[in-house]
Amino acid sequence: MDFQLNCPIPISQYPVITMAHGSGGLLSHQLIDKMFRPLFDNRLLDEGHDGAVIEFATGRIAFTTDSFVVNPIFFPGGNIGNLAVNGTVNDLACCGARPMYLSVGMILEEGLPVEDLWKICLSMQDAARKAGVIIVTGDTKVVEKGHGDKIYINTSGIGVIPEGVNINPSSPREGDVIIINGQIGDHGVAILSAREGLGFETGITSDTTALNGLVEQILKETIEISVLRDPTRGGVATTLNEISTSAGAGIVLEENSLPVSPEVRGACEVLGLDPLYIANEGKILVIVPADLAGNVLNTMKQHPAGADSAIIGRVTSEHPGIVRMITSIGSSRVIDMLTGDQLPRIC
Amino acid sequence: MDFQLNCPIPISQYPVITMAHGSGGLLSHQLIDKMFRPLFDNRLLDEGHDGAVIEFATGRIAFTTDSFVVNPIFFPGGNIGNLAVNGTVNDLACCGARPMYLSVGMILEEGLPVEDLWKICLSMQDAARKAGVIIVTGDTKVVEKGHGDKIYINTSGIGVIPEGVNINPSSPREGDVIIINGQIGDHGVAILSAREGLGFETGITSDTTALNGLVEQILKETIEISVLRDPTRGGVATTLNEISTSAGAGIVLEENSLPVSPEVRGACEVLGLDPLYIANEGKILVIVPADLAGNVLNTMKQHPAGADSAIIGRVTSEHPGIVRMITSIGSSRVIDMLTGDQLPRIC
Repeated sequence: MDFQLNCPIPISQYPVITMAHGSGGLLSHQLIDKMFRPLFDNRLLDEGHDGAVIEFATGRIAFTTDSFVVNPIFFPGGNIGNLAVNGTVNDLACCGARPMYLSVGMILEEGLPVEDLWKICLSMQDAARKAGVIIVTGDTKVVEKGHGDKIYINTSGIGVIPEGVNINPSSPREGDVIIINGQIGDHGVAILSAREGLGFETGITSDTTALNGLVEQILKETIEISVLRDPTRGGVATTLNEISTSAGAGIVLEENSLPVSPEVRGACEVLGLDPLYIANEGKILVIVPADLAGNVLNTMKQHPAGADSAIIGRVTSEHPGIVRMITSIGSSRVIDMLTGDQLPRIC
Repeated sequence: MDFQLNCPIPISQYPVITMAHGSGGLLSHQLIDKMFRPLFDNRLLDEGHDGAVIEFATGRIAFTTDSFVVNPIFFPGGNIGNLAVNGTVNDLACCGARPMYLSVGMILEEGLPVEDLWKICLSMQDAARKAGVIIVTGDTKVVEKGHGDKIYINTSGIGVIPEGVNINPSSPREGDVIIINGQIGDHGVAILSAREGLGFETGITSDTTALNGLVEQILKETIEISVLRDPTRGGVATTLNEISTSAGAGIVLEENSLPVSPEVRGACEVLGLDPLYIANEGKILVIVPADLAGNVLNTMKQHPAGADSAIIGRVTSEHPGIVRMITSIGSSRVIDMLTGDQLPRIC
């Protein structure tokens, strides 16, 4: 696709974002009316209103927000645009909700090529379509060169929680089984590799994807799910520590069961990183009562986003609040929460 | 108040924000658990979830988002924190909604004094209480020094629209009367003055305030409101141009009726600015059928946020899509939409 040719704002005339694109004046309106509105067109997209008006039936909704500052903004397997859509879709799905409506708040740095913005918006449109959500309201600000980093995107989202579904991070019980939907560490290593020019790119791409379809299938199988969580920043280790703390329960991981691709394992060895702490953007931890684990695992494996699903551990009443891992040589070690900034600007 | 003393994070130990505060690890959790959670405590604040779960009765909600990049982050009359809360509260109110739930997404620059973050969060807490909204979910990212500007805040919000209320930007009809709730230009001039060290500060403070209480009173008087809009970026001139365009109607403004304080008028003369194009953060344009204008004006004047309310113009079927102003000397001129970037980073 010739992005320059297709861009609805003439790139020869307006090659880069200027401060005036954020002033609320004519150039702001050009962005909104020529680029954003046609791309994200839907019945609810606010018609010159300060917000979108949405009809709801009685029930529960989930509401979430996430800002994305990933660097670089384009990386193997995705860009900040589809990452921002998928990230908020996944946060809603992890609440047990069916994601429906997104808002998009952009902070553009003066000098951002309009063509880059166009590519990012196209991939947001594509990601929203794939996830079955609509972008109903938005906001754009511009900051001076040197006070941003090309583009930051906030996506907030609303989803509807089906009756009976009640996902609660403090609910895991002894014996519950922990399932993950595939290999860990891909996103973080892909970003790091692209940012530092490490050359791992050919083999490793971000796993960014929407997980609401997978969650829908799981909830069709059973609504007796203890926890759904996407292990993004801080990776599986940090997310399991959070769950362990809020549930007041211990967690035991089996190192041998952790799905890690040979490429990510190799890259982590070279870089001195632990895949357990590396961010994922298309992974979900599903904690279920043991008697349901087999069926849930099978359901997950049948979904494209869960083909490599595996049981990786269980909940225990021993060592409450602590995550331990049985290593491949049979010893056991504590898996702490991430303490430093292993990988900044990963999402 | 001794902010250093009261800050829940020991400032002597952690004087500034570091990249590790955004990693999702221990320092991220310290920020969340010691500062954000206690300040924004409420039943719905997501309990380790990826989002908040909210119960709704059947009806319509408004959903909106806004990113705030104001520079400086502290200014006469407010700071980026209460500005961000009030801004989204007002966008919801302008949809005719009762603002209820906010999300907060922060992008912190490495090196931001923790004390500044604490002051900003305190003023967000205060603004949320005054507006009667609760902050139910949030997200924090940190970017390297030189890739942000101290702090950017996204607030998204949800409000409930009372039955029968139907505010529609395309609905103004010939003869409708335009009311504003007070003097224009204060916010923009206060920011500019603080940023450029122009010394106007003593007389001019930002008008940032929540307008939902005022809107509630107006809607008690009548739900026959054509338009509610807060003239922020681009000022009254740009907002009226937007309304004029979407309604396909003309607008006539009376220069003599425009409330402008002597201080703002003086500052604008010195700086070569037009108050009509300057951002407000506590003003609202109310467009109502002529026969209701008197009662609405009286209602507005009785509210603290509307004491200086005035009728400033009307809707006409002449010159559709165009805003004209009858000047103080009786001539008439076209008021265009803002074209450049008169005042960047104003909100």
